[in-house]
Amino acid sequence: MPNSRRPRRPKIGVFDSGVGGLTVLRALLDRIPDADYLYFGDTARLPYGSKSAATVAHYAVGAVRYLQDQGAELLVIACNTATALALNEIKAAAGVEVIGVIEPGAEAAAAATRKRKVVVIGTDATIGSHAYRRALEARKVGVREKSCPLFVPLVEEGWVEHPVTEQVAKIYLSEAFSEDARDADVLVLGCTHYPLIKPLLRRVAPEHVAIVDSAESTARAVERQLQIEPLPYSTKSARRGVPKLKFFATDSAEKFRKMGTRFLGLPVEDVLHVDLKE
Amino acid sequence: MPNSRRPRRPKIGVFDSGVGGLTVLRALLDRIPDADYLYFGDTARLPYGSKSAATVAHYAVGAVRYLQDQGAELLVIACNTATALALNEIKAAAGVEVIGVIEPGAEAAAAATRKRKVVVIGTDATIGSHAYRRALEARKVGVREKSCPLFVPLVEEGWVEHPVTEQVAKIYLSEAFSEDARDADVLVLGCTHYPLIKPLLRRVAPEHVAIVDSAESTARAVERQLQIEPLPYSTKSARRGVPKLKFFATDSAEKFRKMGTRFLGLPVEDVLHVDLKE
Repeated sequence: MPNSRRPRRPKIGVFDSGVGGLTVLRALLDRIPDADYLYFGDTARLPYGSKSAATVAHYAVGAVRYLQDQGAELLVIACNTATALALNEIKAAAGVEVIGVIEPGAEAAAAATRKRKVVVIGTDATIGSHAYRRALEARKVGVREKSCPLFVPLVEEGWVEHPVTEQVAKIYLSEAFSEDARDADVLVLGCTHYPLIKPLLRRVAPEHVAIVDSAESTARAVERQLQIEPLPYSTKSARRGVPKLKFFATDSAEKFRKMGTRFLGLPVEDVLHVDLKE
Repeated sequence: MPNSRRPRRPKIGVFDSGVGGLTVLRALLDRIPDADYLYFGDTARLPYGSKSAATVAHYAVGAVRYLQDQGAELLVIACNTATALALNEIKAAAGVEVIGVIEPGAEAAAAATRKRKVVVIGTDATIGSHAYRRALEARKVGVREKSCPLFVPLVEEGWVEHPVTEQVAKIYLSEAFSEDARDADVLVLGCTHYPLIKPLLRRVAPEHVAIVDSAESTARAVERQLQIEPLPYSTKSARRGVPKLKFFATDSAEKFRKMGTRFLGLPVEDVLHVDLKE
């Protein structure tokens, strides 16, 4: 009876403050297509980057509870700010496994660096939290952190291949790879918006530098997690499949659909507006 | 008894989603220094620009109620988005006079244009609301609207005199003053962040164009309002005085203090953190 050995499809909740986490969902779909995905974008309260840790924790816990009520059995915090500021609170409040974006990104960076020195770029809030610094120093890797607050609005403007974005990237990266970080050999994209400007960053970053995309690393961590659990994702062929996608947004569903399609690189269709009380 | 004729100092509530409205407060201080000001920055829930009209109205009404509880007798909505999306709801909920930023800006633009054609720049939300278009067309003035989503993050990055900002301004303004808007002779700054890049915009905008700063126009409208009421602000000398300032922020008071000082151009000191339930 082959059917009895067929794995139950995992139901994976993915949470972000907005549409940025869709780059993480995209990486998940590429690796684990045979799953149900519930994506929650807290668009009415974004960006988390300008908010205090207490506010972010409060919002994030509400959102992941909603995802669990919808049946999520594994939670991915596809938001660097929420991971940096509130992962422990989210883990404490959740009854299921929680995977953030920072540990997987740090792990991949530590594996990739030969010089034991990396540069991390992200929003003000992520960089200000020093969460990547802690995760990397725990792995004996030196870190230069650099916040790049203009990248998110540039990506949202759609200027992913634009001379202005290139000029901004040159300014930010030359500051990042200066002085004692001159010989850093890994660049960690510590924001889920940045995969959209990865080709541009590849051109602007010093040639010897490897780029670690934390969306990609997080998808790999989820894959490992599901393999550790008795879900038979052990063979390549088991990974064929058609994902089921459902989206929740706290602000306009229409706006989410429009912007989301660009970030996911796939049509975003089934969007439900959700009103979360504070 | 000269004292009996001395005016009572007005208590003016100024509301914005963040620190941008401080440019309006600054214009108010310059014109009406002898007053008590209560400034409310809803920093935990900014930016309003990405939110729906219903969400913005809900937040704004909560904030102005708080200002009235603190004794505000006149309310200034120093936020283009909140004015554009929720002025009627705010007026309906408030028991006192409410002045938004859009009507005064449109009024000043209509007075300044000879060609009866103006360009309005602002955030996505303000431009998408077409509130300036309506206010100007009601005055028989033609309008080209242009959203400039990168200006706010550039100002917040502190790049108010920076080649990147100049390049972005050239792109935005050349799009704005094109085709049938080529002969527009007024540029309305429809966002409270823009006064900080007014010198740069002055250089980049076509020479024949007059710049209308809606912060400035709003302060003038408040002045008129106070003169219409039996508050004797009729003579220049009555306007000497030392303002009293009190600030309320829904997110970190420390962050507000830091960023706010740049926008106000004066030290921001007395900041109280406020937690507004939804």
